[in-house]
Amino acid sequence: MKNAGANTYNEINSQTVVWEQSLERISKVDFGSFPRGQDFNQIIFTGCGSTYYLSLWAARATQLRTGWVCLAVPSSELFLCPEAWLVPSRKNLIVAISRSGSTTETIKALKMCNQRGCDASIVVTCYPDSELAGLSNAVVALPHAQEKSIAQTRSFTSMMLGVSHITSNSYPETLPQRLSEQLSFIVQRDRDTASTYGKDDKISRFFFLGSGSRYGLACEAMLKMKEMSLSYAEAYHFLEFRHGPMSMVNENSLVIGLMSPELNPLEFNVLQDMKGLGSQVMAIGPVEFEKNFKELDHFIPIDFDDFAMLGEVLYLPILQLLAFERALANGHDPDNPHNLTSVVVLEA
Amino acid sequence: MKNAGANTYNEINSQTVVWEQSLERISKVDFGSFPRGQDFNQIIFTGCGSTYYLSLWAARATQLRTGWVCLAVPSSELFLCPEAWLVPSRKNLIVAISRSGSTTETIKALKMCNQRGCDASIVVTCYPDSELAGLSNAVVALPHAQEKSIAQTRSFTSMMLGVSHITSNSYPETLPQRLSEQLSFIVQRDRDTASTYGKDDKISRFFFLGSGSRYGLACEAMLKMKEMSLSYAEAYHFLEFRHGPMSMVNENSLVIGLMSPELNPLEFNVLQDMKGLGSQVMAIGPVEFEKNFKELDHFIPIDFDDFAMLGEVLYLPILQLLAFERALANGHDPDNPHNLTSVVVLEA
Repeated sequence: MKNAGANTYNEINSQTVVWEQSLERISKVDFGSFPRGQDFNQIIFTGCGSTYYLSLWAARATQLRTGWVCLAVPSSELFLCPEAWLVPSRKNLIVAISRSGSTTETIKALKMCNQRGCDASIVVTCYPDSELAGLSNAVVALPHAQEKSIAQTRSFTSMMLGVSHITSNSYPETLPQRLSEQLSFIVQRDRDTASTYGKDDKISRFFFLGSGSRYGLACEAMLKMKEMSLSYAEAYHFLEFRHGPMSMVNENSLVIGLMSPELNPLEFNVLQDMKGLGSQVMAIGPVEFEKNFKELDHFIPIDFDDFAMLGEVLYLPILQLLAFERALANGHDPDNPHNLTSVVVLEA
Repeated sequence: MKNAGANTYNEINSQTVVWEQSLERISKVDFGSFPRGQDFNQIIFTGCGSTYYLSLWAARATQLRTGWVCLAVPSSELFLCPEAWLVPSRKNLIVAISRSGSTTETIKALKMCNQRGCDASIVVTCYPDSELAGLSNAVVALPHAQEKSIAQTRSFTSMMLGVSHITSNSYPETLPQRLSEQLSFIVQRDRDTASTYGKDDKISRFFFLGSGSRYGLACEAMLKMKEMSLSYAEAYHFLEFRHGPMSMVNENSLVIGLMSPELNPLEFNVLQDMKGLGSQVMAIGPVEFEKNFKELDHFIPIDFDDFAMLGEVLYLPILQLLAFERALANGHDPDNPHNLTSVVVLEA
């Protein structure tokens, strides 16, 4: 395949630049007119596929940071059965996330919420002129994060930055540059790691584990691996993995832990157990805990600095590269995933 | 393997009797002393593995039925980061579910909630004298649903009945018998279907799809397949499947839809699409829609009668038998899953 994955490769690597552009653009959005989380009883983050996983991340990260009650609901579930999620007597804020802004299910979900008297909505998208954006008067638009690839990479992380800014649009002036520098550093250091594990033909099963907001990121890493490379890939809440799903772990597995910033030892114990079952084990976590990870197969340290919620974007690029490398090793074109299109449009 | 799976087989089939016993026992519980959902701002259902999937079912089924705000949270996530779920200013009711009543994570979660001033809790378990039961003054105990097998079958469905009764403990006197009769009828009619698909060596990937409360049941069916037979098995919200995960569908797949009782055509369209991708496709749904399913490979009709929330137990037994048959076909003993123990106990 000539130039297989050229777009995806470019888009993954461009994040060092695109994140700065995203933050610069977001900082110019007039947040004065935005609905404020504290004015609502419940915030529902919604999307489909990658943006549902982004919602899972956003709901937990936002509730942890602000104390506001947050849910993540797939767009389809929201419009198929709104009574199972919405409470009419409470004030609901909907945050609808869609790369294209034209995903039928998310449009239907937002229309349904509007009809049922939801009190406000915010749309996060890469297409400011899309139908979805038109359904809401508060839009976080990230047009320079648009992608040619079907699998979302830089759009996903840029929309994470966009969602972070719903809770706060102030950060130190130097933060965008520092975040980009940290990503450049990680990619330069660990690009070969992604390549080595991506090409390792002993590995045929990938498991991604994360607690709290990192569960959503584990799901996204799982989906990237699946979409690009058609590999066996699963994601679980960290400690849930021992309650049955680990039955699938064998010597052909790679288990990747997205560790808590506070390094909970119970997460580490799960990884040790999986190593005991013959799996290869990798962890991504705070640089200051590097010494704890000597006994695992590989550790990717991240310097979270004081990026707060924004810093969680740093977990993803090496996992995107891992999926990319595995796709090439499997003979698939990462730019053109099997069976998929970039937007799911339902017939009327 | 002599007598492989004898316990599991017995326990699956005993549900025709055990459900009646469960309902009879539950009807004697003094619900007058139970905390009432309407007195709380939020109900959190929690458990691990199967009982987390039971929580996913319970939260959506309960909110839909009552309008109370319900969440499902894995026990580990609740105690690892309670701030991401609990809101101190709101009254929380915890419903903790554990077959053994001795799962460390669920005990830690309930203790954490008690410490943080959660206002009340209910425990659903098969072991009334367990440590977990002792942490709560309201217990739904189902001792005759105890199991020798590691993979939960009759305990799972009996605990579903137990949870249903938290919202209402009144039902027509004839209901337990009618529910058992309906199960007997289904098992007699579709036992061979489970066997045929379980033994079909063209199938190597199982996908379970469900919307609303049925998503939790799809997850449980996925886990049964994995635990007993070590087969490739995944579960998704129905329409989410098209947003990436369906990249894994091929001619060696079986996609099983747990259809909505109101038969939403959008769910049916997903199954048609998967058939178009070469997968075999099965649906389980209301008997009155049998004619709609002619073009799929197999339809398992269920007469939901007026069982309400209780009737959702009827989705599971044939899927349990499917996992059982696949386990035998793969040369595994369903009674003794790979890597697993019946209770996950963490070191202090």
